[in-house]
Amino acid sequence: MRVSVVGGGRIGSGTAAVAEELGRLLGERGHTLVCGGRGGVMRASCRGARGAGAETVGILPSTDPTEANEHVSVPVATGLGHARNALVPLNGDAVVAVAGGPGTLSEIGFALVYGRPVAGLATHEVDGVEPCDSPAAAVEHVERAVDER
Amino acid sequence: MRVSVVGGGRIGSGTAAVAEELGRLLGERGHTLVCGGRGGVMRASCRGARGAGAETVGILPSTDPTEANEHVSVPVATGLGHARNALVPLNGDAVVAVAGGPGTLSEIGFALVYGRPVAGLATHEVDGVEPCDSPAAAVEHVERAVDER
Amino acid sequence: MRVSVVGGGRIGSGTAAVAEELGRLLGERGHTLVCGGRGGVMRASCRGARGAGAETVGILPSTDPTEANEHVSVPVATGLGHARNALVPLNGDAVVAVAGGPGTLSEIGFALVYGRPVAGLATHEVDGVEPCDSPAAAVEHVERAVDER
Amino acid sequence: MRVSVVGGGRIGSGTAAVAEELGRLLGERGHTLVCGGRGGVMRASCRGARGAGAETVGILPSTDPTEANEHVSVPVATGLGHARNALVPLNGDAVVAVAGGPGTLSEIGFALVYGRPVAGLATHEVDGVEPCDSPAAAVEHVERAVDER
Repeated sequence: MRVSVVGGGRIGSGTAAVAEELGRLLGERGHTLVCGGRGGVMRASCRGARGAGAETVGILPSTDPTEANEHVSVPVATGLGHARNALVPLNGDAVVAVAGGPGTLSEIGFALVYGRPVAGLATHEVDGVEPCDSPAAAVEHVERAVDER
Repeated sequence: MRVSVVGGGRIGSGTAAVAEELGRLLGERGHTLVCGGRGGVMRASCRGARGAGAETVGILPSTDPTEANEHVSVPVATGLGHARNALVPLNGDAVVAVAGGPGTLSEIGFALVYGRPVAGLATHEVDGVEPCDSPAAAVEHVERAVDER
Repeated sequence: MRVSVVGGGRIGSGTAAVAEELGRLLGERGHTLVCGGRGGVMRASCRGARGAGAETVGILPSTDPTEANEHVSVPVATGLGHARNALVPLNGDAVVAVAGGPGTLSEIGFALVYGRPVAGLATHEVDGVEPCDSPAAAVEHVERAVDER
Repeated sequence: MRVSVVGGGRIGSGTAAVAEELGRLLGERGHTLVCGGRGGVMRASCRGARGAGAETVGILPSTDPTEANEHVSVPVATGLGHARNALVPLNGDAVVAVAGGPGTLSEIGFALVYGRPVAGLATHEVDGVEPCDSPAAAVEHVERAVDER
């Protein structure tokens, strides 16, 4: 399936390690990773997923496909600015949120609007987001939630 | 100034009364109301604002301007679906959130992305949203916050 | 009714005079003018319409409502970049195109996608666009075309 | 490189053959095909490109990735309706237009707004679109135009 990973664009090394492990697990499980295509959680998770051989789709705010981080295999430029946040969760069968600020909050909102299961790793506490204590638990949660549909 | 009011599309009579009073106060204070143009908090707040003589801008998800509630003076059709949620807070100098579900959460996220002051009335508890206990307090908060910039 | 005016952002004085007369006529006939909110044909037509007391809606590409020209009475920021071209013809019951380059061509395309009658003044020659030789003829064409629906 | 193919959603068998050959040639030359992901020229060109082993990106108007035709390898749902027409030419280094109506015209407009070289096969006659008499000529034109930049 496709899993959207949303999260902060500026993160510390601890969060980067979590995001990279998340991407790696998703890739090992055969999933495609969808994200906003830029830095922080997006770059780290793409790096993990690509290392595991997965496809990574990066849906970018600007009109410049080369703005994508180097681990995005399919960059999609939108030119929509922040409104592209609506497209990222839409293109996953499920969503994992990692840390993040208000942009991530908007993506969590859209994930729930679109009825996607959402797992959270040290992110906003919102009804409908399942807090998980590890990337493995987050992957397990979204796989099970999608299976049950 | 312009104030965006975001909130649930399906609400009870208590929330409707709050939203209508909010709209009325905004109109009496000379502000333009911006919203998503449809039902629930949007309709009730537009009704209040129009009753006080204010302009009401409704930024709609569909391609049909007639989808606007009857208290919208300037309907703007977008055809963008839920992505129009990015445009509603953007067009206010400040934002007031009233109740609401995940769509409202996405709008709160965008309000904070765009650096808008946000007052909340019985809505999501999010860092950066000032919880207020009455429409009057919400209006006072956003007026002061915009003044201080 | 609402009439969208689309056309070039950089124009000479002859085209500006045509656009301003078009705006003036639309305003005198009681119509609201919708446009992209910026310079060239947009500014000149808004100037004419405002001079005649009409409302002018400017749907802007950027996130900055102050980017609107000084004759826009209702600025709507979108942050969508060029994709906002879809919204301008959508919000008119009819469209008048004045001169213009590729951006105007995209707006003519959307006008026809949305089934809007389109009058043209020295603009792209496209099936479905009625070439007119004066602003008065363009206004007459779109009024009649909307009436007949 | 990536080449966006734009064109009609409802076409006859002659146009379908042209679009399929175009897709096949693009695939054989190692290019990725980007399109609107649906039927007509989009399906036929994707079919040709996939047959030649190419990646095909389908940028869809609706929120439903399964709306993509069966030859799209990377569906991207947008929920933007017709405004997604801005995204299709943006994501190609060059554009080939095949037949088509007003939607295609809007995409040609955006291609030129974004400065993309455009080859045309029995499509709108527009300044800036190079009319070509075969898929091979169209591919040759866009390859050379991109090379010269």
